Amino acid sequence: MTPPQADTHGVGSILHGGRMLADGIPFPDYQEAAAKIGSLEEWFDFWAAKGEAYEELGDRALAAGNSLSGGEWLWQAALSWHYAQFMWFHDPSRRERGQRHKVELYNRAAPHLLPAAERIELPFEGCTVPGFLRLPVGQSPPAGWPCALLLGGLESTKEESRLFEELCLRRGLATFAFDGPGQGELFFEVKLQPEFERYASAVLDHLVSRRELDAERIGVIGRSLGGHYALRSAAADARLKACVAWGFFFDMSDFDTMPSHTQDGFVYVTGLEEREAGRSYLQKALDLGDVAGQLRVPTLLLNGRHDPIFPPHQVHLVLSALERAPTEVVIEEQGDHCCHNLAPVVRPRMADWLVNALRAP
Amino acid sequence: MTPPQADTHGVGSILHGGRMLADGIPFPDYQEAAAKIGSLEEWFDFWAAKGEAYEELGDRALAAGNSLSGGEWLWQAALSWHYAQFMWFHDPSRRERGQRHKVELYNRAAPHLLPAAERIELPFEGCTVPGFLRLPVGQSPPAGWPCALLLGGLESTKEESRLFEELCLRRGLATFAFDGPGQGELFFEVKLQPEFERYASAVLDHLVSRRELDAERIGVIGRSLGGHYALRSAAADARLKACVAWGFFFDMSDFDTMPSHTQDGFVYVTGLEEREAGRSYLQKALDLGDVAGQLRVPTLLLNGRHDPIFPPHQVHLVLSALERAPTEVVIEEQGDHCCHNLAPVVRPRMADWLVNALRAP
Repeated sequence: MTPPQADTHGVGSILHGGRMLADGIPFPDYQEAAAKIGSLEEWFDFWAAKGEAYEELGDRALAAGNSLSGGEWLWQAALSWHYAQFMWFHDPSRRERGQRHKVELYNRAAPHLLPAAERIELPFEGCTVPGFLRLPVGQSPPAGWPCALLLGGLESTKEESRLFEELCLRRGLATFAFDGPGQGELFFEVKLQPEFERYASAVLDHLVSRRELDAERIGVIGRSLGGHYALRSAAADARLKACVAWGFFFDMSDFDTMPSHTQDGFVYVTGLEEREAGRSYLQKALDLGDVAGQLRVPTLLLNGRHDPIFPPHQVHLVLSALERAPTEVVIEEQGDHCCHNLAPVVRPRMADWLVNALRAP
Repeated sequence: MTPPQADTHGVGSILHGGRMLADGIPFPDYQEAAAKIGSLEEWFDFWAAKGEAYEELGDRALAAGNSLSGGEWLWQAALSWHYAQFMWFHDPSRRERGQRHKVELYNRAAPHLLPAAERIELPFEGCTVPGFLRLPVGQSPPAGWPCALLLGGLESTKEESRLFEELCLRRGLATFAFDGPGQGELFFEVKLQPEFERYASAVLDHLVSRRELDAERIGVIGRSLGGHYALRSAAADARLKACVAWGFFFDMSDFDTMPSHTQDGFVYVTGLEEREAGRSYLQKALDLGDVAGQLRVPTLLLNGRHDPIFPPHQVHLVLSALERAPTEVVIEEQGDHCCHNLAPVVRPRMADWLVNALRAP
């Protein structure tokens, strides 16, 4: 595979300000990246250096007893490493180094966040599914907290969703984010699989056993490829009572028109060497045709009209297949992929929708 | 007075990304402003339109029962109006309209924020000093919460400090932000005065009477002109146990080299028509010479080496005058005014410092 600049527009092709800032990259870092990174070759090292600087800040804050700053800076370090490697499909050794260091940093940050994130490792079919549970601050309701299961996408992982989790947490929803097959640290054990919903169900087995959570009020929200997975999971497991998919797709029929680094990423997470084999595997593995008709719970679909990866007809494919689910559809006229360019408006809205859909009867 | 573009660089002279994003302007709005505002004439209407859009979002969220989103969008609307008018010294009627609408929006947002902001109106010498008290989420300590008194500057007001308040609140510090003479809504009653500390003391009279607060653990933190006021206030009132000044100055000896719209702003808040009279009034009213020697509490001073308004020698003037205060000084080598360009690092640090300085014995 080639580095992303080969057929795109250099740094601009992966410097996604809307997404990066909504996920927590500080504006000064974005501004510096925009001004200083001359070519994609410099990208990885730029963000790795940011990661090192935040790690040092975090360690010093922890040593001084400033645990909230310590946790948040270690998380900031994790996020910098996330973006160092997020498109580095052409350079698997650096990608793995970035990914593993991100995981280690987030693990260290987790107990110091507010609210804390509890790492949970779930054995499943010979591997270990890693996730983080966060509970809202304060006294839990008698039946336990309602909970949002958060699904990342092609290269977004459980470490990247902290700010979205906090949108949920501040509205009284617990959150659980995990890496499934092909995602984050689980990629090194299991590549992308069909039937992602089996992993979601394994996670649900744990969540419904937690006294702090209300087993009757768990919903799922997934972004991009995670939106596809959210629809699969909610269709397959009736324990999910509401579903939000954003930046999602129905199937891989638009594979050939995706930006080339997105294509590279999809092939990479299959673990297959041959591009054509990867493409063909993906087209079989990622198709809602077999499950969409089973979805029955309230569902919110949100995509952008200008999504260059999953065009609006993917929304229509999902809509025609959702025969039984009460569905609300938003295609934002100005929106890009995941409506990241409208994040400050659409993200709180999705959190509100999920809170309302999971409201106690 | 002339509009700010007369001797500067057009929109770039007031589009301060570091400050605006750290205070809560969403990145997409900043990006749109940078791309679309062709001249300063368009500035006010651009941000006013953003304010109107957020107000509508906020009202709709409140009507739908989504009170946190409602509160935060009304605050977002207030912040848009804040930036519409913040440099509009040359156009007092629009400035007043923006200022008053901002106040109204924040008043409506306040009860819905998390934690809520309680509006408090303190009668003082025939006027009413308006402020907002916020308490950390959760059970208060037996002796009450420690508290940070937040002081705005020349055109920063109590509505603009929400995110800084939340840095304090999440670390267990209550916050009180208010408008003093010449600031925010109080400007319409009282122009800039010497002895700002008399207003801070009137506020302290109220704070020490609040059962939720620990009267023995109140500190002050002020930004820009508010940093100057913080030093005055902590020097004059022994009830303040710690002091942070950032982007501060000792006196007005650098008036003539300030950017012209800053000069205009200083003259505007005096309420004097004549520039020369304003300048001369400011030089008498804003001088720490009479009080700095009395400051005895732990003090953190933070300025940027590249502050174009208050150059580093202002820090040295303060340092030589602080004869008795245990002082920590940070001049950030890469920092601009208030180190806004380093906000994601310096702001949590200041909050940590204040928390530690006010720790229970």
